[in-house]
Amino acid sequence: MRFLKIVLAYEGTHYAGWQVQPNGISVQEVLETAWRQVTGEQRRMVASGRTDAGVHALAQVCSIETGSTLPGERLVAALNAGLPPDIRVLAVEEAPHNFHAIRDAIRKTYHYRIQHGRHADLFQRNYAWHVPVVLDADRMEQGASCLRGKHDFSAFEATGSERRDAIRTIFSLNASSRERGPFREIRIEVTADGFLYNMVRNIVGTLVMVGRGKHPPEWVQEVLESGDRSRAGPTAPAHGLFLVSVDYAH
Amino acid sequence: MRFLKIVLAYEGTHYAGWQVQPNGISVQEVLETAWRQVTGEQRRMVASGRTDAGVHALAQVCSIETGSTLPGERLVAALNAGLPPDIRVLAVEEAPHNFHAIRDAIRKTYHYRIQHGRHADLFQRNYAWHVPVVLDADRMEQGASCLRGKHDFSAFEATGSERRDAIRTIFSLNASSRERGPFREIRIEVTADGFLYNMVRNIVGTLVMVGRGKHPPEWVQEVLESGDRSRAGPTAPAHGLFLVSVDYAH
Repeated sequence: MRFLKIVLAYEGTHYAGWQVQPNGISVQEVLETAWRQVTGEQRRMVASGRTDAGVHALAQVCSIETGSTLPGERLVAALNAGLPPDIRVLAVEEAPHNFHAIRDAIRKTYHYRIQHGRHADLFQRNYAWHVPVVLDADRMEQGASCLRGKHDFSAFEATGSERRDAIRTIFSLNASSRERGPFREIRIEVTADGFLYNMVRNIVGTLVMVGRGKHPPEWVQEVLESGDRSRAGPTAPAHGLFLVSVDYAH
Repeated sequence: MRFLKIVLAYEGTHYAGWQVQPNGISVQEVLETAWRQVTGEQRRMVASGRTDAGVHALAQVCSIETGSTLPGERLVAALNAGLPPDIRVLAVEEAPHNFHAIRDAIRKTYHYRIQHGRHADLFQRNYAWHVPVVLDADRMEQGASCLRGKHDFSAFEATGSERRDAIRTIFSLNASSRERGPFREIRIEVTADGFLYNMVRNIVGTLVMVGRGKHPPEWVQEVLESGDRSRAGPTAPAHGLFLVSVDYAH
Protein backbone atom coordinates (compact mmCIF):
# COMPACT_ATOMS: atom_id res chain seq x y z
CA MET A 1 0.00 0.00 0.00
CA ARG A 2 0.94 3.61 -0.54
CA PHE A 3 0.68 6.39 2.08
CA LEU A 4 -0.22 9.89 0.95
CA LYS A 5 -0.30 13.33 2.52
CA ILE A 6 -3.10 15.49 1.12
CA VAL A 7 -2.95 19.25 1.71
CA LEU A 8 -6.20 21.11 1.23
CA ALA A 9 -7.81 24.50 1.74
CA TYR A 10 -11.46 25.05 2.44
CA GLU A 11 -13.91 27.75 3.39
CA GLY A 12 -15.91 26.43 6.35
CA THR A 13 -18.92 28.73 5.89
CA HIS A 14 -21.20 26.24 4.18
CA TYR A 15 -20.05 23.06 5.96
CA ALA A 16 -20.98 21.44 9.26
CA GLY A 17 -17.24 21.19 10.01
CA TRP A 18 -14.61 18.63 9.04
CA GLN A 19 -16.11 15.48 10.48
CA VAL A 20 -18.88 13.37 8.98
CA GLN A 21 -22.04 13.85 10.99
CA PRO A 22 -25.79 13.33 10.70
CA ASN A 23 -26.76 17.00 10.23
CA GLY A 24 -25.26 18.96 7.40
CA ILE A 25 -22.53 18.21 4.92
CA SER A 26 -18.97 17.82 6.18
CA VAL A 27 -15.73 18.58 4.37
CA GLN A 28 -14.62 15.01 5.09
CA GLU A 29 -17.51 13.36 3.27
CA VAL A 30 -17.18 15.67 0.28
CA LEU A 31 -13.48 14.82 0.03
CA GLU A 32 -14.09 11.09 0.50
CA THR A 33 -16.71 11.18 -2.26
CA ALA A 34 -14.28 12.92 -4.61
CA TRP A 35 -11.63 10.34 -3.73
CA ARG A 36 -14.03 7.48 -4.54
CA GLN A 37 -14.94 9.06 -7.87
CA VAL A 38 -11.30 9.39 -8.87
CA THR A 39 -9.87 6.11 -7.56
CA GLY A 40 -12.86 3.83 -7.03
CA GLU A 41 -11.74 3.43 -3.40
CA GLN A 42 -14.00 3.99 -0.40
CA ARG A 43 -11.49 5.33 2.15
CA ARG A 44 -11.57 7.18 5.44
CA MET A 45 -9.67 10.49 5.28
CA VAL A 46 -7.87 11.33 8.52
CA ALA A 47 -7.29 15.07 9.07
CA SER A 48 -4.75 16.61 11.45
CA GLY A 49 -7.67 17.81 13.52
CA ARG A 50 -11.37 18.40 13.22
CA THR A 51 -12.43 21.92 12.42
CA ASP A 52 -15.87 23.10 13.56
CA ALA A 53 -18.62 24.48 11.37
CA GLY A 54 -17.56 27.85 9.96
CA VAL A 55 -13.83 27.37 10.66
CA HIS A 56 -11.58 27.73 7.60
CA ALA A 57 -8.40 25.95 6.56
CA LEU A 58 -5.58 27.39 4.46
CA ALA A 59 -3.62 24.11 4.62
CA GLN A 60 -5.32 21.26 6.41
CA VAL A 61 -3.37 17.99 6.19
CA CYS A 62 -4.98 14.59 5.67
CA SER A 63 -3.49 11.12 5.52
CA ILE A 64 -4.76 8.23 3.45
CA GLU A 65 -3.62 4.73 2.59
CA THR A 66 -4.29 3.85 -1.01
CA GLY A 67 -3.85 1.21 -3.69
CA SER A 68 -3.98 3.89 -6.37
CA THR A 69 -0.83 4.40 -8.44
CA LEU A 70 -1.86 7.76 -9.93
CA PRO A 71 0.90 10.39 -9.59
CA GLY A 72 0.31 13.17 -7.04
CA GLU A 73 -0.10 15.88 -9.69
CA ARG A 74 -2.79 13.86 -11.47
CA LEU A 75 -4.63 13.27 -8.20
CA VAL A 76 -4.61 17.01 -7.44
CA ALA A 77 -6.18 17.82 -10.81
CA ALA A 78 -8.70 14.97 -10.73
CA LEU A 79 -9.83 15.65 -7.15
CA ASN A 80 -10.22 19.38 -7.80
CA ALA A 81 -12.31 18.64 -10.89
CA GLY A 82 -14.79 16.82 -8.65
CA LEU A 83 -14.70 19.13 -5.64
CA PRO A 84 -16.87 22.24 -5.12
CA PRO A 85 -15.09 25.61 -5.44
CA ASP A 86 -14.92 26.11 -1.66
CA ILE A 87 -12.69 23.05 -1.18
CA ARG A 88 -9.37 22.88 -3.07
CA VAL A 89 -6.64 20.26 -2.93
CA LEU A 90 -3.29 22.10 -2.93
CA ALA A 91 -0.94 19.10 -3.01
CA VAL A 92 -0.83 15.32 -2.85
CA GLU A 93 2.56 14.07 -1.69
CA GLU A 94 4.14 10.69 -0.95
CA ALA A 95 4.31 10.15 2.81
CA PRO A 96 6.32 7.77 5.01
CA HIS A 97 4.98 4.28 5.74
CA ASN A 98 2.07 4.42 8.21
CA PHE A 99 1.88 8.23 8.02
CA HIS A 100 -1.01 9.43 10.20
CA ALA A 101 -2.14 13.06 10.06
CA ILE A 102 -3.15 13.32 13.73
CA ARG A 103 -0.57 11.13 15.48
CA ASP A 104 2.45 12.44 13.55
CA ALA A 105 1.66 16.19 13.79
CA ILE A 106 4.21 18.03 15.88
CA ARG A 107 3.06 21.63 15.51
CA LYS A 108 0.00 23.54 14.33
CA THR A 109 -0.62 27.19 13.57
CA TYR A 110 -3.95 28.97 13.72
CA HIS A 111 -4.84 32.58 12.93
CA TYR A 112 -7.87 34.35 14.30
CA ARG A 113 -9.11 37.54 12.66
CA ILE A 114 -11.11 40.25 14.43
CA GLN A 115 -12.57 43.38 12.90
CA HIS A 116 -13.21 45.98 15.54
CA GLY A 117 -14.82 49.37 15.76
CA ARG A 118 -18.28 50.43 14.72
CA HIS A 119 -18.08 49.46 11.05
CA ALA A 120 -16.78 46.21 9.64
CA ASP A 121 -15.84 45.29 6.09
CA LEU A 122 -18.81 43.37 4.72
CA PHE A 123 -16.45 41.37 2.49
CA GLN A 124 -14.90 39.93 5.67
CA ARG A 125 -18.19 38.97 7.33
CA ASN A 126 -17.51 35.23 7.03
CA TYR A 127 -13.76 35.55 7.70
CA ALA A 128 -13.46 37.79 10.75
CA TRP A 129 -15.32 38.32 14.02
CA HIS A 130 -16.79 41.81 14.19
CA VAL A 131 -16.45 43.29 17.68
CA PRO A 132 -18.32 46.61 17.43
CA VAL A 133 -16.06 48.55 19.79
CA VAL A 134 -12.43 49.56 19.32
CA LEU A 135 -10.06 47.09 21.00
CA ASP A 136 -6.63 47.84 22.48
CA ALA A 137 -4.27 45.45 20.70
CA ASP A 138 -1.35 46.33 22.99
CA ARG A 139 -3.31 45.22 26.06
CA MET A 140 -4.27 42.00 24.26
CA GLU A 141 -0.63 41.38 23.38
CA GLN A 142 0.31 41.94 27.05
CA GLY A 143 -2.43 39.59 28.20
CA ALA A 144 -1.28 36.93 25.74
CA SER A 145 2.32 36.89 26.98
CA CYS A 146 1.64 34.67 30.04
CA LEU A 147 0.13 31.94 27.83
CA ARG A 148 3.37 31.28 25.94
CA GLY A 149 5.25 28.17 27.00
CA LYS A 150 4.16 24.89 28.59
CA HIS A 151 1.03 25.13 30.73
CA ASP A 152 -2.08 23.29 31.80
CA PHE A 153 -4.70 24.96 29.57
CA SER A 154 -7.77 23.47 31.31
CA ALA A 155 -9.23 26.97 31.74
CA PHE A 156 -9.35 27.31 27.94
CA GLU A 157 -10.74 23.88 27.13
CA ALA A 158 -14.41 23.40 26.21
CA THR A 159 -16.24 21.91 29.17
CA GLY A 160 -17.09 18.23 28.84
CA SER A 161 -14.01 17.44 26.73
CA GLU A 162 -12.41 14.06 27.33
CA ARG A 163 -8.63 14.38 27.33
CA ARG A 164 -5.91 12.56 29.19
CA ASP A 165 -4.26 15.84 30.09
CA ALA A 166 -4.54 19.51 29.25
CA ILE A 167 -0.83 20.32 29.12
CA ARG A 168 0.25 21.93 25.88
CA THR A 169 3.17 24.07 24.76
CA ILE A 170 2.48 27.34 22.94
CA PHE A 171 5.57 28.19 20.90
CA SER A 172 4.33 31.59 19.81
CA LEU A 173 1.25 33.73 20.37
CA ASN A 174 0.84 37.30 19.14
CA ALA A 175 -1.88 39.86 18.72
CA SER A 176 -1.13 42.47 16.07
CA SER A 177 -3.11 45.37 14.76
CA ARG A 178 -3.47 46.48 11.15
CA GLU A 179 -5.62 48.74 9.03
CA ARG A 180 -7.55 47.33 6.10
CA GLY A 181 -8.64 50.42 4.22
CA PRO A 182 -11.01 52.25 6.58
CA PHE A 183 -11.44 49.15 8.79
CA ARG A 184 -9.48 48.02 11.85
CA GLU A 185 -8.29 44.47 12.19
CA ILE A 186 -6.50 42.51 14.92
CA ARG A 187 -4.91 39.21 14.01
CA ILE A 188 -4.05 36.66 16.68
CA GLU A 189 -1.47 34.11 15.54
CA VAL A 190 -0.76 31.04 17.64
CA THR A 191 1.52 28.04 17.17
CA ALA A 192 1.52 25.10 19.59
CA ASP A 193 2.33 21.39 19.77
CA GLY A 194 -1.39 20.74 20.00
CA PHE A 195 -4.66 22.38 20.95
CA LEU A 196 -7.48 21.40 23.28
CA TYR A 197 -11.01 21.55 21.98
CA ASN A 198 -12.00 25.22 21.43
CA MET A 199 -8.69 26.35 22.94
CA VAL A 200 -7.92 29.03 20.34
CA ARG A 201 -11.45 30.42 20.38
CA ASN A 202 -11.47 30.52 24.20
CA ILE A 203 -8.10 32.29 24.29
CA VAL A 204 -9.37 34.83 21.74
CA GLY A 205 -12.59 35.42 23.69
CA THR A 206 -10.51 35.99 26.82
CA LEU A 207 -8.08 38.38 25.13
CA VAL A 208 -10.99 40.37 23.72
CA MET A 209 -12.23 40.94 27.28
CA VAL A 210 -8.82 42.47 28.00
CA GLY A 211 -8.84 44.46 24.74
CA ARG A 212 -12.23 45.93 25.68
CA GLY A 213 -10.90 47.01 29.06
CA LYS A 214 -13.18 44.67 31.04
CA HIS A 215 -10.15 43.11 32.75
CA PRO A 216 -6.46 44.05 33.13
CA PRO A 217 -3.84 42.06 31.14
CA GLU A 218 -2.76 40.28 34.37
CA TRP A 219 -6.21 38.73 34.66
CA VAL A 220 -5.28 36.26 31.88
CA GLN A 221 -2.62 34.76 34.16
CA GLU A 222 -5.21 34.35 36.93
CA VAL A 223 -7.57 32.59 34.52
CA LEU A 224 -4.78 30.28 33.33
CA GLU A 225 -3.76 29.37 36.89
CA SER A 226 -7.35 28.78 38.00
CA GLY A 227 -7.78 25.93 35.53
CA ASP A 228 -11.43 26.92 35.57
CA ARG A 229 -13.22 27.35 32.24
CA SER A 230 -15.95 29.45 33.84
CA ARG A 231 -13.42 32.17 34.70
CA ALA A 232 -12.23 32.68 31.10
CA GLY A 233 -13.92 34.85 28.49
CA PRO A 234 -16.60 33.61 26.06
CA THR A 235 -15.79 31.36 23.11
CA ALA A 236 -15.07 33.53 20.07
CA PRO A 237 -17.21 32.66 17.03
CA ALA A 238 -15.95 30.04 14.58
CA HIS A 239 -15.84 32.15 11.43
CA GLY A 240 -12.75 34.19 12.40
CA LEU A 241 -10.62 31.06 12.80
CA PHE A 242 -8.19 29.72 10.18
CA LEU A 243 -6.09 26.57 10.42
CA VAL A 244 -2.95 27.89 8.71
CA SER A 245 -0.45 25.04 8.76
CA VAL A 246 0.42 21.67 10.29
CA ASP A 247 4.03 20.56 10.68
CA TYR A 248 5.39 17.02 10.70
CA ALA A 249 8.80 15.74 11.75
CA HIS A 250 9.53 14.12 8.38
CA MET B 1 -37.34 68.74 0.61
CA ARG B 2 -33.98 67.47 1.76
CA PHE B 3 -31.31 66.02 -0.54
CA LEU B 4 -29.11 63.21 0.76
CA LYS B 5 -26.00 61.41 -0.42
CA ILE B 6 -25.97 57.76 0.61
CA VAL B 7 -22.66 55.88 0.48
CA LEU B 8 -22.93 52.11 0.50
CA ALA B 9 -20.85 48.97 0.04
CA TYR B 10 -22.18 45.71 -1.31
CA GLU B 11 -21.03 42.32 -2.45
CA GLY B 12 -22.58 41.71 -5.85
CA THR B 13 -22.35 37.90 -5.77
CA HIS B 14 -25.96 37.21 -4.85
CA TYR B 15 -27.61 40.09 -6.71
CA ALA B 16 -28.78 40.61 -10.27
CA GLY B 17 -26.87 43.91 -10.28
CA TRP B 18 -27.80 47.38 -9.08
CA GLN B 19 -30.90 48.03 -11.14
CA VAL B 20 -34.41 46.74 -10.47
CA GLN B 21 -35.26 44.09 -13.02
CA PRO B 22 -37.70 41.25 -13.53
CA ASN B 23 -35.27 38.38 -12.90
CA GLY B 24 -33.45 38.21 -9.62
CA ILE B 25 -33.13 40.61 -6.72
CA SER B 26 -31.33 43.91 -7.27
CA VAL B 27 -29.38 45.98 -4.77
CA GLN B 28 -31.59 48.94 -5.64
CA GLU B 29 -34.85 47.26 -4.64
CA VAL B 30 -33.37 45.93 -1.40
CA LEU B 31 -32.20 49.44 -0.52
CA GLU B 32 -35.51 51.03 -1.50
CA THR B 33 -37.36 48.50 0.67
CA ALA B 34 -35.11 49.29 3.63
CA TRP B 35 -35.70 53.02 3.03
CA ARG B 36 -39.46 52.51 3.04
CA GLN B 37 -39.32 50.53 6.27
CA VAL B 38 -37.34 53.26 8.00
CA THR B 39 -39.03 56.40 6.66
CA GLY B 40 -42.37 55.23 5.29
CA GLU B 41 -41.40 56.79 1.95
CA GLN B 42 -41.50 54.93 -1.36
CA ARG B 43 -38.56 56.54 -3.19
CA ARG B 44 -36.41 55.81 -6.21
CA MET B 45 -32.71 55.54 -5.30
CA VAL B 46 -30.42 56.92 -8.00
CA ALA B 47 -26.90 55.39 -8.02
CA SER B 48 -23.82 56.92 -9.65
CA GLY B 49 -23.93 54.08 -12.13
CA ARG B 50 -25.46 50.66 -12.52
CA THR B 51 -23.26 47.76 -11.57
CA ASP B 52 -23.85 44.40 -13.24
CA ALA B 53 -24.60 41.11 -11.51
CA GLY B 54 -21.54 39.98 -9.55
CA VAL B 55 -19.85 43.40 -9.52
CA HIS B 56 -18.99 44.71 -6.05
CA ALA B 57 -18.99 48.21 -4.60
CA LEU B 58 -16.76 49.54 -1.84
CA ALA B 59 -18.40 52.97 -1.95
CA GLN B 60 -21.30 53.34 -4.35
CA VAL B 61 -23.01 56.72 -4.10
CA CYS B 62 -26.77 57.21 -4.30
CA SER B 63 -28.89 60.33 -4.22
CA ILE B 64 -32.35 60.64 -2.77
CA GLU B 65 -34.83 63.43 -2.08
CA THR B 66 -36.63 62.96 1.18
CA GLY B 67 -39.12 64.47 3.61
CA SER B 68 -37.52 62.60 6.49
CA THR B 69 -35.86 64.68 9.18
CA LEU B 70 -33.92 61.82 10.79
CA PRO B 71 -30.24 62.71 11.30
CA GLY B 72 -27.74 60.95 9.00
CA GLU B 73 -26.25 58.83 11.78
CA ARG B 74 -29.69 57.52 12.75
CA LEU B 75 -30.50 56.70 9.12
CA VAL B 76 -27.23 54.71 8.80
CA ALA B 77 -28.06 52.60 11.86
CA ALA B 78 -31.73 52.10 10.96
CA LEU B 79 -31.05 51.21 7.31
CA ASN B 80 -28.31 48.75 8.26
CA ALA B 81 -30.61 47.07 10.77
CA GLY B 82 -32.97 46.26 7.90
CA LEU B 83 -30.40 45.43 5.22
CA PRO B 84 -28.87 41.98 4.62
CA PRO B 85 -25.21 41.55 5.68
CA ASP B 86 -23.94 41.83 2.08
CA ILE B 87 -25.21 45.43 1.74
CA ARG B 88 -24.01 48.05 4.23
CA VAL B 89 -24.69 51.76 4.35
CA LEU B 90 -21.43 53.52 5.24
CA ALA B 91 -22.69 57.09 5.46
CA VAL B 92 -25.73 59.30 4.90
CA GLU B 93 -24.74 62.91 4.34
CA GLU B 94 -26.54 66.16 3.58
CA ALA B 95 -26.15 67.02 -0.13
CA PRO B 96 -26.60 70.24 -2.11
CA HIS B 97 -30.05 71.14 -3.46
CA ASN B 98 -30.95 68.93 -6.43
CA PHE B 99 -27.95 66.64 -5.89
CA HIS B 100 -28.04 63.84 -8.47
CA ALA B 101 -25.66 60.89 -8.15
CA ILE B 102 -25.23 60.32 -11.91
CA ARG B 103 -25.32 63.84 -13.31
CA ASP B 104 -23.07 65.39 -10.68
CA ALA B 105 -20.33 62.74 -10.65
CA ILE B 106 -17.03 64.06 -11.97
CA ARG B 107 -14.74 61.07 -11.44
CA LYS B 108 -15.02 57.36 -10.70
CA THR B 109 -12.48 54.75 -9.69
CA TYR B 110 -12.73 51.03 -10.31
CA HIS B 111 -10.37 48.23 -9.33
CA TYR B 112 -10.22 44.88 -11.08
CA ARG B 113 -8.55 41.92 -9.40
CA ILE B 114 -7.01 38.98 -11.24
CA GLN B 115 -5.51 35.87 -9.69
CA HIS B 116 -3.15 34.19 -12.12
CA GLY B 117 -1.15 31.01 -12.28
CA ARG B 118 -2.29 27.45 -11.86
CA HIS B 119 -3.72 27.75 -8.35
CA ALA B 120 -6.02 30.46 -7.08
CA ASP B 121 -7.00 31.34 -3.54
CA LEU B 122 -10.43 29.80 -3.02
CA PHE B 123 -11.29 32.61 -0.59
CA GLN B 124 -11.03 35.02 -3.55
CA ARG B 125 -13.23 33.01 -5.92
CA ASN B 126 -16.01 35.62 -5.87
CA TYR B 127 -13.66 38.62 -5.74
CA ALA B 128 -11.03 37.98 -8.41
CA TRP B 129 -10.91 36.52 -11.92
CA HIS B 130 -8.76 33.41 -12.00
CA VAL B 131 -6.63 33.26 -15.16
CA PRO B 132 -4.93 29.84 -14.92
CA VAL B 133 -1.64 30.90 -16.53
CA VAL B 134 1.00 33.30 -15.24
CA LEU B 135 0.55 36.81 -16.65
CA ASP B 136 3.25 39.39 -17.32
CA ALA B 137 2.15 42.47 -15.36
CA ASP B 138 4.88 44.66 -16.90
CA ARG B 139 3.56 43.99 -20.40
CA MET B 140 0.04 44.78 -19.20
CA GLU B 141 1.26 48.03 -17.68
CA GLN B 142 2.96 48.91 -21.00
CA GLY B 143 -0.20 48.06 -22.93
CA ALA B 144 -2.29 50.19 -20.59
CA SER B 145 -0.20 53.34 -21.07
CA CYS B 146 -1.76 54.32 -24.42
CA LEU B 147 -5.24 54.33 -22.88
CA ARG B 148 -4.49 57.16 -20.46
CA GLY B 149 -5.87 60.56 -21.44
CA LYS B 150 -8.80 61.64 -23.58
CA HIS B 151 -9.82 59.16 -26.27
CA ASP B 152 -12.76 57.69 -28.14
CA PHE B 153 -13.21 54.39 -26.33
CA SER B 154 -15.69 52.84 -28.80
CA ALA B 155 -13.47 49.76 -29.13
CA PHE B 156 -14.03 49.05 -25.43
CA GLU B 157 -17.76 49.69 -25.30
CA ALA B 158 -20.26 46.83 -25.19
CA THR B 159 -21.85 46.47 -28.63
CA GLY B 160 -25.40 47.77 -28.87
CA SER B 161 -24.88 50.52 -26.30
CA GLU B 162 -26.70 53.77 -26.89
CA ARG B 163 -24.47 56.72 -26.10
CA ARG B 164 -24.18 60.18 -27.54
CA ASP B 165 -20.42 59.83 -27.75
CA ALA B 166 -17.70 57.48 -26.58
CA ILE B 167 -15.10 60.07 -25.61
CA ARG B 168 -13.88 59.71 -22.05
CA THR B 169 -10.79 60.83 -20.14
CA ILE B 170 -8.83 58.28 -18.16
CA PHE B 171 -6.91 60.16 -15.45
CA SER B 172 -4.98 57.12 -14.26
CA LEU B 173 -4.70 53.45 -15.20
CA ASN B 174 -2.21 51.01 -13.70
CA ALA B 175 -1.61 47.30 -13.57
CA SER B 176 0.38 46.19 -10.55
CA SER B 177 1.49 42.80 -9.36
CA ARG B 178 1.49 41.49 -5.79
CA GLU B 179 1.81 38.22 -3.93
CA ARG B 180 -0.97 37.09 -1.63
CA GLY B 181 0.65 34.28 0.30
CA PRO B 182 1.38 31.57 -2.28
CA PHE B 183 -0.95 33.17 -4.84
CA ARG B 184 -0.26 35.75 -7.55
CA GLU B 185 -2.49 38.75 -8.03
CA ILE B 186 -2.63 41.60 -10.52
CA ARG B 187 -4.68 44.63 -9.68
CA ILE B 188 -5.82 47.05 -12.36
CA GLU B 189 -6.81 50.46 -11.02
CA VAL B 190 -8.54 52.97 -13.24
CA THR B 191 -9.92 56.45 -12.65
CA ALA B 192 -11.86 58.33 -15.33
CA ASP B 193 -14.44 61.07 -15.77
CA GLY B 194 -16.90 58.37 -16.80
CA PHE B 195 -17.08 54.88 -18.23
CA LEU B 196 -18.89 53.35 -21.16
CA TYR B 197 -20.87 50.18 -20.62
CA ASN B 198 -18.47 47.29 -19.87
CA MET B 199 -15.49 49.59 -20.55
CA VAL B 200 -13.40 48.46 -17.56
CA ARG B 201 -14.09 44.77 -18.16
CA ASN B 202 -13.25 45.13 -21.87
CA ILE B 203 -10.00 46.96 -21.09
CA VAL B 204 -9.10 44.22 -18.58
CA GLY B 205 -9.88 41.44 -21.06
CA THR B 206 -7.69 43.20 -23.63
CA LEU B 207 -4.78 43.72 -21.21
CA VAL B 208 -4.95 40.06 -20.22
CA MET B 209 -4.40 39.10 -23.89
CA VAL B 210 -1.21 41.16 -23.72
CA GLY B 211 -0.23 39.70 -20.33
CA ARG B 212 -0.61 36.18 -21.75
CA GLY B 213 1.66 37.04 -24.66
CA LYS B 214 -1.05 36.68 -27.31
CA HIS B 215 -0.40 40.23 -28.53
CA PRO B 216 2.38 42.82 -28.03
CA PRO B 217 1.69 45.86 -25.80
CA GLU B 218 1.47 48.10 -28.91
CA TRP B 219 -1.58 46.12 -30.07
CA VAL B 220 -3.70 47.93 -27.45
CA GLN B 221 -3.08 51.21 -29.29
CA GLU B 222 -4.22 49.60 -32.56
CA VAL B 223 -7.39 48.34 -30.88
CA LEU B 224 -8.08 51.80 -29.42
CA GLU B 225 -7.57 53.54 -32.77
CA SER B 226 -9.71 51.01 -34.66
CA GLY B 227 -12.81 51.95 -32.63
CA ASP B 228 -13.89 48.36 -33.33
CA ARG B 229 -15.16 46.30 -30.38
CA SER B 230 -14.53 43.07 -32.28
CA ARG B 231 -10.77 43.74 -32.28
CA ALA B 232 -10.46 44.06 -28.51
CA GLY B 233 -10.08 41.19 -26.05
CA PRO B 234 -13.00 39.39 -24.39
CA THR B 235 -15.03 40.97 -21.61
CA ALA B 236 -13.49 40.03 -18.26
CA PRO B 237 -15.95 38.40 -15.84
CA ALA B 238 -17.95 40.61 -13.49
CA HIS B 239 -16.80 39.19 -10.17
CA GLY B 240 -13.28 40.73 -10.26
CA LEU B 241 -14.67 44.26 -10.56
CA PHE B 242 -15.04 46.72 -7.66
CA LEU B 243 -16.49 50.22 -7.81
CA VAL B 244 -14.11 51.89 -5.37
CA SER B 245 -15.14 55.55 -5.23
CA VAL B 246 -17.15 58.28 -6.90
CA ASP B 247 -16.11 61.91 -6.66
CA TYR B 248 -18.31 64.99 -6.79
CA ALA B 249 -17.37 68.64 -7.24
CA HIS B 250 -18.93 69.71 -3.97
